[in-house]
Amino acid sequence: MSINQTLIFGHKNPDTDSIMSSMVMANLENQLGNQAKAVRLGNINKETEYVFKYLGIETPELISDVEDGQNVILVDHNESTQSANNLSNAIIKKVVDHHTMNFVAPYQLYYRTEPVGCTSTVLYKMYKEYDIPITKNIATMMLSAIISDTLLFKSPTCTPDDKTIAEKLSKIAEVDINTYGTDLLKAGTDLSDYTPEQVINIDSKLFEKGGKKFKIAQINTADIDSVFKNKVYFEAAINDEIKKDNLDLYVFAATDILNSNSKIISLGNDSGIVEKAYGVTLDDNTAMLENVVSRKKQMLPKILENLD
Amino acid sequence: MSINQTLIFGHKNPDTDSIMSSMVMANLENQLGNQAKAVRLGNINKETEYVFKYLGIETPELISDVEDGQNVILVDHNESTQSANNLSNAIIKKVVDHHTMNFVAPYQLYYRTEPVGCTSTVLYKMYKEYDIPITKNIATMMLSAIISDTLLFKSPTCTPDDKTIAEKLSKIAEVDINTYGTDLLKAGTDLSDYTPEQVINIDSKLFEKGGKKFKIAQINTADIDSVFKNKVYFEAAINDEIKKDNLDLYVFAATDILNSNSKIISLGNDSGIVEKAYGVTLDDNTAMLENVVSRKKQMLPKILENLD
Repeated sequence: MSINQTLIFGHKNPDTDSIMSSMVMANLENQLGNQAKAVRLGNINKETEYVFKYLGIETPELISDVEDGQNVILVDHNESTQSANNLSNAIIKKVVDHHTMNFVAPYQLYYRTEPVGCTSTVLYKMYKEYDIPITKNIATMMLSAIISDTLLFKSPTCTPDDKTIAEKLSKIAEVDINTYGTDLLKAGTDLSDYTPEQVINIDSKLFEKGGKKFKIAQINTADIDSVFKNKVYFEAAINDEIKKDNLDLYVFAATDILNSNSKIISLGNDSGIVEKAYGVTLDDNTAMLENVVSRKKQMLPKILENLD
Repeated sequence: MSINQTLIFGHKNPDTDSIMSSMVMANLENQLGNQAKAVRLGNINKETEYVFKYLGIETPELISDVEDGQNVILVDHNESTQSANNLSNAIIKKVVDHHTMNFVAPYQLYYRTEPVGCTSTVLYKMYKEYDIPITKNIATMMLSAIISDTLLFKSPTCTPDDKTIAEKLSKIAEVDINTYGTDLLKAGTDLSDYTPEQVINIDSKLFEKGGKKFKIAQINTADIDSVFKNKVYFEAAINDEIKKDNLDLYVFAATDILNSNSKIISLGNDSGIVEKAYGVTLDDNTAMLENVVSRKKQMLPKILENLD
């Protein structure tokens, strides 16, 4: 892998936005005459796999570390805890994101983030700005990312920009948003091939604040009860991770994409934080959070607030 | 001052880019339907004054603090040490910048920075992206900022984007770049009305790294020798600041805009850092740095490297 070729990747435990946005950004860079290649920092989940099968294309190469001096572009994240190992010795040329920020660079770079629901929504604007044509495949990738991140526009993270742009993209992609979107989200709820360890790592993110370390993992489901049949196995897997990574808190949320609420398992020394945060009482480590679907807007801020 | 109206400002000790970019950004926001107003965090320097006289318009209101909950937009800076007092209790809605980054926001926002020589270069692209017309006055403001930050394209911070965009702006502004640019830069070299305390604060920036605090101040001149006739007065003023602000290092640079080099005064316990950084020997606290004109690209990085 040449360090002259810029590597583009999303966060660890990649979701559909991280994977699609890295490929969409790589295409943009190549169209602009910059040598760039999308890679990924983890396994493809079932939802993302649906897009690859739909398009009949190959997944990006898996990496875990970057070399010293490697040029990189980060999409869908900016914090080093969520990024490739050895990132501090790489050169970050660009960041395109839509998350809160915790970022230091002792050099100038291109950084673009907007308060929208999906990285691909920002990328769509960049394609327009640079006047780069959006092909049917690229449109399908961006549309899939927006549907995934906004739970088909039902998440409170969804903004008017996300919806308007998704509608434009659906025309280029030649798909009906609701049909394609429901199929995509449902594909992501299939847990049949996963071990409990894999389920809790489908989409988990590590956060740190004031010396405390915690993870919030989230899966989508159309049937919470069937997920919780395996509760004891998830608990064992979570407790293993808590021990291994020295975590103070682990929140695992199964989010019902049809009814827009989440049932959680909360474990770790600080597990009680969720009781304060949501005014609920944990019953055998679990609680139902009504109308809570967004990790970014409804889970992370509440936990951060109550962490002290 | 209503907290519903977004305040837009550049860094403390504002230069032409900080002042012009805040006004250009305010116009963009207003054109986009957002209530916004440019303000400034310090006195207007002679160079910037030249633009106001040329355009026959009023300077923005001076502020030092922002209220709790105030919506703000930062231009031409992102670090809180260079910004308004009480910034941590304001809500940063957007940042448009071209500097290195040291930024944390526990909420989503719009952030756009590019590795170019001037904030106004980024703003020009935003006007194009949003398809907002650039009037003659707005073009003159942006052009003035680019000429100032790039020393009429002579600074190593100048990029092809800065030059191309400046040329486009000069047509809208209906000025000859070289004539207007030389007049603008020369206006900035007039120190006759300033006390020594004011001279060292025309464009000084505070930096911090690993517990060390230092300032780099810079003025432009067409005649270094005449500036250094007042050396002892500058030294007294600098030593007062070092004591007052507990600084480890103060570098004052008089940059010759015609011959593209800088003569510096280095004071403070860490004054010797400049000797290591540039392979020079301080003679009575001063040294000539050949081909050094950019604080951002040629002064700050060398000092940071040698600070440990």
